[in-house]
Amino acid sequence: MIIDCHGHYTTAPAAHQKFREAQLAGLKDPDAPPARPGAISDDEIRETIEKNQLRLQKQRGSDLTLFSPRASAMGHHLGNEAISSAWTQANNDLIKRVVDLYPENFAGVCQLPQSPGVPIANSVAELERCVRELNFVGCNLNPDPSGGHWTSPPLTDRHWYPFYEKMVELEVPAMIHVSASCNPNFHATGAHYINADTTAFMQFIEGDLFRDFPTLRFIIPHGGGAVPYHWGRYRGLADMLKRPALETHVMKNVFFDTCVYHQPGIDLLVRVIDIGNILFGSEMVGAVRGIDPQTGHHFDDTRRYIDALLIPRADKERIFEKNARRVFPRLDAQLAARGQ
Amino acid sequence: MIIDCHGHYTTAPAAHQKFREAQLAGLKDPDAPPARPGAISDDEIRETIEKNQLRLQKQRGSDLTLFSPRASAMGHHLGNEAISSAWTQANNDLIKRVVDLYPENFAGVCQLPQSPGVPIANSVAELERCVRELNFVGCNLNPDPSGGHWTSPPLTDRHWYPFYEKMVELEVPAMIHVSASCNPNFHATGAHYINADTTAFMQFIEGDLFRDFPTLRFIIPHGGGAVPYHWGRYRGLADMLKRPALETHVMKNVFFDTCVYHQPGIDLLVRVIDIGNILFGSEMVGAVRGIDPQTGHHFDDTRRYIDALLIPRADKERIFEKNARRVFPRLDAQLAARGQ
Repeated sequence: MIIDCHGHYTTAPAAHQKFREAQLAGLKDPDAPPARPGAISDDEIRETIEKNQLRLQKQRGSDLTLFSPRASAMGHHLGNEAISSAWTQANNDLIKRVVDLYPENFAGVCQLPQSPGVPIANSVAELERCVRELNFVGCNLNPDPSGGHWTSPPLTDRHWYPFYEKMVELEVPAMIHVSASCNPNFHATGAHYINADTTAFMQFIEGDLFRDFPTLRFIIPHGGGAVPYHWGRYRGLADMLKRPALETHVMKNVFFDTCVYHQPGIDLLVRVIDIGNILFGSEMVGAVRGIDPQTGHHFDDTRRYIDALLIPRADKERIFEKNARRVFPRLDAQLAARGQ
Repeated sequence: MIIDCHGHYTTAPAAHQKFREAQLAGLKDPDAPPARPGAISDDEIRETIEKNQLRLQKQRGSDLTLFSPRASAMGHHLGNEAISSAWTQANNDLIKRVVDLYPENFAGVCQLPQSPGVPIANSVAELERCVRELNFVGCNLNPDPSGGHWTSPPLTDRHWYPFYEKMVELEVPAMIHVSASCNPNFHATGAHYINADTTAFMQFIEGDLFRDFPTLRFIIPHGGGAVPYHWGRYRGLADMLKRPALETHVMKNVFFDTCVYHQPGIDLLVRVIDIGNILFGSEMVGAVRGIDPQTGHHFDDTRRYIDALLIPRADKERIFEKNARRVFPRLDAQLAARGQ
């Protein structure tokens, strides 16, 4: 079984985006009634999924995608807490409908209602709703709701603890995933995403978060940002800063996906990172949608890179399935309940 | 000949740091006379260099280091324009003294007097002084003088053009190098440095800077940040954004050093990046000073990683010497003038 731990609903029906636009337009007119999500039929959802994610799952041979709202559209820096909350609920409700239509192919991962300066405790209720009522198995946590100004405290700060307590209680991991950038220095998918991954990892080295939450689990997407390429730097920095070795500290709780869009990058990832810390992911249909002229295949068809690795079959099974079932115990329980 | 393109005077005599402290303390007392650099004898400089950089050059077998002031101490976010200017001049004057004491072993690369919100045109005079009067061969340009708040325009913005014009006129390249971070999210050497490298590269993809300045040259340090590991992503993004292919655009003007502190990272770098774009660098004595327990050698002894590569000797000569002489024509001229 092949589980893709990183997929976003980047192809949602147009009515969904129209709701968002109305919502943001309403900010300029305080007397306007609040925008409400437009009607979206099951057929519209089917069309957007079957032509895209489901088609690619079949083409590329993956079985189930951990599916969350489009990351770049979370837009936590836009509007205010009420706007972010309404947009987040609509997004998560839409994911739930996809999962209900294709329960074999998707499992839900939720967006959170974050806003700069708003306590993260205010995000707990939506996590609880998504996990307990909608049967979601994980969440995406934005370390920078300001969208590229980095005004929140580091992820190891007690600011975030109320949310971590709920994650631990519910047994759900979080993928650390920023949204769009409103800082012109940072291209969203070319700089902001990768920088956030690298930044989060270094915060975990410096902090004592996993002493306080030994069962907390994070996925750092996009292959861990710059980290595996600079693995010697991070091992050396942990040593210089008198922090525990990476394998006995951060890597007990942190996992990288395989959203690295060329063979040499995946080769490096598997060479330096323990197999138990790698989860298959593609982020399709996502940041990089073209065909690599060097291979004739899609850049984000990451299964090919794993298939090409000269590692034991059992290791590939861990990357493709077993690690994800360990990191997402609620997913494992759902699969087990239907005999998978 | 082995040229290390990336070394900072991280071991400067204590009097130098005392000047800086007095300078910053003076900010709190507007009536205090401006701090002045303390006296530093040639013997003090000799001691700090011979025990550190010169000793390591000999041990590791490199010949000449492109030497600049300590990057993390540039502190462009501290004080004001006058403070930054005085500190920068003192730093560059100290580098000049090192070069004069050991002209075979060091060539000068200058810090610039930058401050958030201050036009970059104000940095031109110090570049000119360092190149024309002190015979420096390059400079370090900080893309984020705010120290982690990223308040300047992207490097492709016309904001920076007055400085680029002078770089082109003087035939000197710039290493893109941030300083310390005053944003608690970003550890300086573990996140801010690497993020800045990645960010700069993506800005160059998006912009048309090298159309306007076809001979402008930048070194992106720390192995190009996350870029080589995500080379497929950047090739794919260039394609998606309808930008020219990397090898016909950005990589005509941008070079990566080898400050990647483990063999797998260097193997990847050389596998995906054209040999002509790679300059040997170690950043010793710098960010990571310990010994790698996996190899028994210093993490930043990057020569060992190049030596271990299974590539033709001629390619290693390009990485070690020829590329640096091409990117730094003033260095080449100095070496040629003394028959090297």
